[in-house]
Amino acid sequence: MVEEKSLHMTPDEFRRYGRAVVDWIADYYEKIETLPVLSQVKPGQIRALLPPKPPLNGEPFEIILDDMKRVVLPGITHWQSPNFFAFFPANASGPSILGDLLSSGLGVQGMLWSTSPACTELETHVLDWTVDMMGLPEKFKSTSTGGGVIQDSASSASLCALLAARERATKFASNEKGCDGRLVAYSSTQTHSSVEKAVKIAGLGRQNLRLIDVDEKFALRPDLLVEAIRKDREAGLIPCYVCATVGTTSSNAIDPLPEIGKTCRREGIWLHVDGAMLGTAAVCPEFRHLLDGIEFSDSYCFNPHKWMFTNFDCDCFFVADRAALIHTLSILPEYLRNQATESGAVIDYRDWHIPLGRRFRSLKLWFVIRHYGVEGLKALVRRHVEWAQKFARWVQEDNRFELAVPPPMNLVCFRHVGGDEVNQKIMDWLNQSGKIYLTHTRLKDRLTLRLCVGQTQTEERHVIQAWDLIRQAAQEIAGA
Amino acid sequence: MVEEKSLHMTPDEFRRYGRAVVDWIADYYEKIETLPVLSQVKPGQIRALLPPKPPLNGEPFEIILDDMKRVVLPGITHWQSPNFFAFFPANASGPSILGDLLSSGLGVQGMLWSTSPACTELETHVLDWTVDMMGLPEKFKSTSTGGGVIQDSASSASLCALLAARERATKFASNEKGCDGRLVAYSSTQTHSSVEKAVKIAGLGRQNLRLIDVDEKFALRPDLLVEAIRKDREAGLIPCYVCATVGTTSSNAIDPLPEIGKTCRREGIWLHVDGAMLGTAAVCPEFRHLLDGIEFSDSYCFNPHKWMFTNFDCDCFFVADRAALIHTLSILPEYLRNQATESGAVIDYRDWHIPLGRRFRSLKLWFVIRHYGVEGLKALVRRHVEWAQKFARWVQEDNRFELAVPPPMNLVCFRHVGGDEVNQKIMDWLNQSGKIYLTHTRLKDRLTLRLCVGQTQTEERHVIQAWDLIRQAAQEIAGA
Repeated sequence: MVEEKSLHMTPDEFRRYGRAVVDWIADYYEKIETLPVLSQVKPGQIRALLPPKPPLNGEPFEIILDDMKRVVLPGITHWQSPNFFAFFPANASGPSILGDLLSSGLGVQGMLWSTSPACTELETHVLDWTVDMMGLPEKFKSTSTGGGVIQDSASSASLCALLAARERATKFASNEKGCDGRLVAYSSTQTHSSVEKAVKIAGLGRQNLRLIDVDEKFALRPDLLVEAIRKDREAGLIPCYVCATVGTTSSNAIDPLPEIGKTCRREGIWLHVDGAMLGTAAVCPEFRHLLDGIEFSDSYCFNPHKWMFTNFDCDCFFVADRAALIHTLSILPEYLRNQATESGAVIDYRDWHIPLGRRFRSLKLWFVIRHYGVEGLKALVRRHVEWAQKFARWVQEDNRFELAVPPPMNLVCFRHVGGDEVNQKIMDWLNQSGKIYLTHTRLKDRLTLRLCVGQTQTEERHVIQAWDLIRQAAQEIAGA
Repeated sequence: MVEEKSLHMTPDEFRRYGRAVVDWIADYYEKIETLPVLSQVKPGQIRALLPPKPPLNGEPFEIILDDMKRVVLPGITHWQSPNFFAFFPANASGPSILGDLLSSGLGVQGMLWSTSPACTELETHVLDWTVDMMGLPEKFKSTSTGGGVIQDSASSASLCALLAARERATKFASNEKGCDGRLVAYSSTQTHSSVEKAVKIAGLGRQNLRLIDVDEKFALRPDLLVEAIRKDREAGLIPCYVCATVGTTSSNAIDPLPEIGKTCRREGIWLHVDGAMLGTAAVCPEFRHLLDGIEFSDSYCFNPHKWMFTNFDCDCFFVADRAALIHTLSILPEYLRNQATESGAVIDYRDWHIPLGRRFRSLKLWFVIRHYGVEGLKALVRRHVEWAQKFARWVQEDNRFELAVPPPMNLVCFRHVGGDEVNQKIMDWLNQSGKIYLTHTRLKDRLTLRLCVGQTQTEERHVIQAWDLIRQAAQEIAGA
């Protein structure tokens, strides 16, 4: 029995190995700038380093930790590198990592209020803080008719919003009887692919998703939305959901929320606003105009795990009418019944998203907001926007390059004037150099490079170096 | 600029604060046994300790960490306590917590192979290991036609399986055209509530979920399943999905997979098997009979975050035909295109679940399997089963108590012979004592207590103490 007991790590061993892991991470951040940003391994190369069968007997922790360097690091694309400008950022920070570590240590399940009241109440409270901090409508607060919840991702938030919209539009029949092919959803051609995925998952069908065309700045055209809704109503269909975006993935385009919102109000359609990356900007009052019209929305999300220094997963999802969401996703089997739930005085977050189990995710967000303070977050966001805007000016001033669209905030879409092939080669040259990582999109059917400034470790010098490298790549590839 | 830069935690500060957090967790585990298992706070009590507005300026880390004791701990129900016998366990362990810490530190997004090949390849490899380790069918391996993926929860796994089933049954029309009210799903009356939730989410409608009645041991009756399918076909409906359970939440009942599986094969219906808690038992060859018939299934999941010492979230979800799953959930916008994906030589796990973004969750599972070794995991699981069986014998030998059902493994369903009111009072007395936490269910409409042995820190003496307390409660409440 004594021997078997010793299978577990003792608290003293946990202290020792825990320090080793903390040091490993600190060392990693100290050297991260010197590592090739994009992993250069070939498919199968990492697996080939792993034994075909799991070990029969336990291995010493030192050996396991050593394999982080030998096996794992070569296959890592360094999202936390200051030279990571690809996709949207996923910026982590010290306070977030340590808040999350405490969540792992406590190991509680927050599915019900009663299964750890602090897990629920801290989440509700911090999301109410966030409403104030970002200047969001009061209706998104738990003290009003709505409330916030942490979801794993904006994809899941879009899906939950769609489900609530579906239920509201069918007067609660879609959960009961299923879909009948008449419900219609709307977004723009630039909306994140997760909305198409949600429309499929929720049983509406891709054919019932209208991808509304966009204007010169890649923002949804509200006149075409009105027209599409009218046509669908005439055809006997039931418009139920519009997803508008503040900061599309392709180009950071901002859909006109006031016009879209008024249409949704008039038509009784659920408006979900996806501010996954750009939503963080609203911590700065001078950028809140991006969210003008948010007061018309039924739900909204943004991801602190993208630009607000909180490691994945942390999507803040707000609804104006929590009853609609809860009604849609609520299930109460006997084995989950308890007095607190029956009293109606508490929130059971199980009814606010798809999974039942849930981690204590608000700890990391609480730690981030307290470590930086609201003023600290503002200062950091402003720097990122300032550097991205500087970069955009350098692009404009260099006649080999052009902006694909005026960059509203921290994402710059640009291209070499030499055409798609040159741009592809420039991107490949840059990414293979290991010194920088950026990705592309297509805008007006032209290959366009994207540079997004938002990593925790990024300083102005990294943006300057990025521009130097891009010019060097142009010289190598296009000879000018 | 220098001042602003210092907003971030430096690597040296991270070392210092990281050690403080590691020590905090080690201290917590050293004293966890002395803490009241079930939090006794009232609704609103935790929120009342928090300031109404977020701080404008950053706070010292020491102050933030101090609030873990002042604000958070009173509102924690200690899932990691050795005296936690409620619900199903959610057992964490040192190697898991540290593996997860490394995941937070690396901060990578594993949505595509190319966004961190190690994140994808380690996951694929460890899930292949798991197939061997648990004696699961070869078809669930990535080297065969199938493969495994880590989902957040068994709820999401059930949903993804249902979506793939829906697509297969409609010859890929449900994603395209939406649901039409004709698809039917089947489970037992004892199946986890997440299946009803999934059926609603996926647009089938609750009315199209048949809850098949169970036998004396609360296992699905395969004859009634055959009958229900026949009736639905006669009515022009399309049976598409059966969810069978190995270890129901209420009573750990085991549905007869061979009979159900043969029916599904004959009828061309997708069989999903949910082994969320009990699946871990299959690490021991002598318990693999629980999964007899799994070879007929199309998909299967179990949760290492329940009984295999891996902290939430970690549900292992396996499919026999990965193409069916990927076809169902795949989306490929331009900004995610890359050479590795186009080559077809890699897995992009984004297409295996609902969210796009994903954390490096296989690290913690890899650490757990390597730390304990397969033999270590076997030894620990055997102990839990042995103690639960001992507890069941004590119940049987005491004429004040009875077993509600013979306990197949590590969950004992029992009750005092004095009726519902006495059992409710016994449970309340026990949970309010702070010395133990257990929950209830209803079986044959009688309130039934559940004691599940599966926490990492639980030793035989805790089970003995639990039984002592239960007898003491009976004496206090029922005077005998």
